[in-house]
Amino acid sequence: MSAAVTAYLESNADRLLAELCELLRIPSISAQPEHQPDMLRAAKFLHDQFAAMGFQVETVQTAGHPIVYAEWLQAPGAPTVLVYGHYDVQPPDPLDLWTTPPFEPTIRDGKLFARGATDDKGQVFTHVKSAEAWLKTEGRLPVNLKFVIEGEEEVGSNNLDHFLESRKAALACDVAVVSDTSQYAPGIPAITYGLRGIVACEVALRGPKKDLHSGVFGGSVTNPVNALCRLVSALHDADGRVQIPGFYDDVAPLSDAERAGFAKLPFDEAAYRAELGVSAVHGEAGFTTLERRWARPTCDVNGITGGYQGAGPKTIVPSRASAKITCRLVPQQDPARILDALEHFLNENCLPGVELEFFRFHGCPAFVFDPTSPYLTAASEAIQEAFGAAPVLIREGGSIPVVTTFREVLGVDTLLLGWGQNTDNLHSPDEHFTVADFHRGTLASAALWERLAALPKTVG
Amino acid sequence: MSAAVTAYLESNADRLLAELCELLRIPSISAQPEHQPDMLRAAKFLHDQFAAMGFQVETVQTAGHPIVYAEWLQAPGAPTVLVYGHYDVQPPDPLDLWTTPPFEPTIRDGKLFARGATDDKGQVFTHVKSAEAWLKTEGRLPVNLKFVIEGEEEVGSNNLDHFLESRKAALACDVAVVSDTSQYAPGIPAITYGLRGIVACEVALRGPKKDLHSGVFGGSVTNPVNALCRLVSALHDADGRVQIPGFYDDVAPLSDAERAGFAKLPFDEAAYRAELGVSAVHGEAGFTTLERRWARPTCDVNGITGGYQGAGPKTIVPSRASAKITCRLVPQQDPARILDALEHFLNENCLPGVELEFFRFHGCPAFVFDPTSPYLTAASEAIQEAFGAAPVLIREGGSIPVVTTFREVLGVDTLLLGWGQNTDNLHSPDEHFTVADFHRGTLASAALWERLAALPKTVG
Repeated sequence: MSAAVTAYLESNADRLLAELCELLRIPSISAQPEHQPDMLRAAKFLHDQFAAMGFQVETVQTAGHPIVYAEWLQAPGAPTVLVYGHYDVQPPDPLDLWTTPPFEPTIRDGKLFARGATDDKGQVFTHVKSAEAWLKTEGRLPVNLKFVIEGEEEVGSNNLDHFLESRKAALACDVAVVSDTSQYAPGIPAITYGLRGIVACEVALRGPKKDLHSGVFGGSVTNPVNALCRLVSALHDADGRVQIPGFYDDVAPLSDAERAGFAKLPFDEAAYRAELGVSAVHGEAGFTTLERRWARPTCDVNGITGGYQGAGPKTIVPSRASAKITCRLVPQQDPARILDALEHFLNENCLPGVELEFFRFHGCPAFVFDPTSPYLTAASEAIQEAFGAAPVLIREGGSIPVVTTFREVLGVDTLLLGWGQNTDNLHSPDEHFTVADFHRGTLASAALWERLAALPKTVG
Repeated sequence: MSAAVTAYLESNADRLLAELCELLRIPSISAQPEHQPDMLRAAKFLHDQFAAMGFQVETVQTAGHPIVYAEWLQAPGAPTVLVYGHYDVQPPDPLDLWTTPPFEPTIRDGKLFARGATDDKGQVFTHVKSAEAWLKTEGRLPVNLKFVIEGEEEVGSNNLDHFLESRKAALACDVAVVSDTSQYAPGIPAITYGLRGIVACEVALRGPKKDLHSGVFGGSVTNPVNALCRLVSALHDADGRVQIPGFYDDVAPLSDAERAGFAKLPFDEAAYRAELGVSAVHGEAGFTTLERRWARPTCDVNGITGGYQGAGPKTIVPSRASAKITCRLVPQQDPARILDALEHFLNENCLPGVELEFFRFHGCPAFVFDPTSPYLTAASEAIQEAFGAAPVLIREGGSIPVVTTFREVLGVDTLLLGWGQNTDNLHSPDEHFTVADFHRGTLASAALWERLAALPKTVG
């Protein structure tokens, strides 16, 4: 790759990191309405970055948080690459489990700690800065670049599809790039060729119209908390298999080759247990931990609440109980069908005397990439150049709904190039991004533009 | 009864109510440490009441909240009656379900709304004011009276037993009186001859050391919320029978006569459902609603919490989940044995990969009074005089642990004389006390002292 680009990234490393910290200081929590002004500040920060390096840039208003769209299209004859990322972050709570405040970026042991450090501000910023390196040194980019950076990824990307569909022609591209996944392990970079899908919902049970004295009334009315626990418990059998009728009907089974590939990856179960702080791994019978995480569907409660939440005892039959539930999906499972089956199952198994309400959140199907694509080879070479090691092909348990949308709306596949580690605590307290991974990721991104430039242009 | 006492209560009715409101304005929430100063204010209010009418009174310090002890012993040859009550109240939350603030007493439709209006400030205050009526008019009480009014009833009365045992001789009495129960229905006063016991505990499951991304890790570790729901669900079978081994072993079955007596009481199930706001009554198969409430043991979750508690989705596997559980007990069930069995059952049924912690709160056995006692007859006559109707004999589902202690430490039975209604929302939002019941209760209390004076003195 261009020696000037490499030298630029090296000599500007500290400034690039400092600029990332500026972005991380903005508490752009999309789920919480009180952070609306912070969402605008984060969008403006990115807008200004693109404007400063000569991109055409627009902050696009939506029904929710704005989308930052930027393009540089001065590489005629070269392919066009669409980079997607998000500037919103998960709520940081529980706050008391953070070593340093989530929106005061702090470096400890070579790691940058902040909410959004790796998911996704830090990762998307590598692509912004690799573009800057090319433009500041070579005065050009090897490919045409389009950036779509949204502010609603953590709350379901409700306004992204409309944006993509309404600008379908302007967004035409040869391939998409998303850095919102992880390396396989330190020293083992990875390309993620599969993602799980997701459906999310909330179930609430309403019992007595107010909390009741558990002595005076207990035993004579259905307790909504007990009834909710009964429903949640019914979701799995003793072997960890989901009991919703039809849940596994469409699941694409893992091929023998995939199971063998997963089995070859280094995986230290004791270290995994220690990292998570659990005494045992546990899940669906008949599958390994990697298979459970990457290729088997789940049904997890993300939060439950009901009745007295304070200290000490309070002797009531609660009036209401609710649980937030997500199912992770694997290829061929249809999100709407799974959510329908879940709702039906809950209604069928609900005790009398409580009213069930079911609220649907977002959902998206799983995704699997074709591992023979030349785009994948180009990415693999760029990563080897920056990280000094060839990436392994892995799947990921999380969901990136936009990958499905890119295929459906723009007709392109997505390169999932994760620069972080899966121990970076994304969505958890003490989220962080290894500083060296930030710099290597930026270098890999810069190399990627050059590698992709050698591939045929199919649009524009 | 003394016409002067009756006339005094009538002409001072408004002032008595105003003084009760003064007491209700004090947020004496024993469970919440920040209300410690309010506990002292409530105790002082009662202390001053007794001092003003010539009782010997002492505010007794304990390891927790103080006990107000007052005595008037100038009726030689007459029996001695110990009145017990409590000046502490339950936490008022959820606050948004109160029509008017819990500590701003408000009269609507002849009802006085405030936390503690009926449980127990309003009820115990009837006995304070009946004593005042006798002393201000006749210059004497027909019996010797000892008042014990504690501040820790809602948090387990942890320091009451020590007080009672250490002053056993000074507290000697012929019978105890407690007004912390209800009438059977408007127009149907009642004497409660049985109470359920209680054990209370909290179970917590610790899983991963922090909340995890449900996509990256979901399916490979035990989810503490799902695991807790599994435990809670296992507590009952489909017929509502508790599944803890040995739970029913010691349960004293209801006699045919008791079942027949309960069946004779007017009970409008449709009105009960409407009052509680439930679409169906539901409980242990094979028992009526009154039997389920009064004479069958229960296992209810009073509160559950785990994972994300905010708005919208958050895609995590929670680190921890916990539930507060109470079992209501019936005669012959041993609280310690039940709690042991519950703890054992939870441990036996816990999934691998989570650590179970079990915290014990207070407990007390159930109580049944001998319905042939002359004290009961005296109380029945006093109630008929004040309420214009003979009381029915009922049981109650709640617990009054001190009743057991009075039998064990002082060797006396307790008259449970409830002036309120079971629709008074005790422990719930919009707790209230019907103003007429407050006045009738005070009159019945004044009559009770005279009726009890005719019975033989056995102590002092």
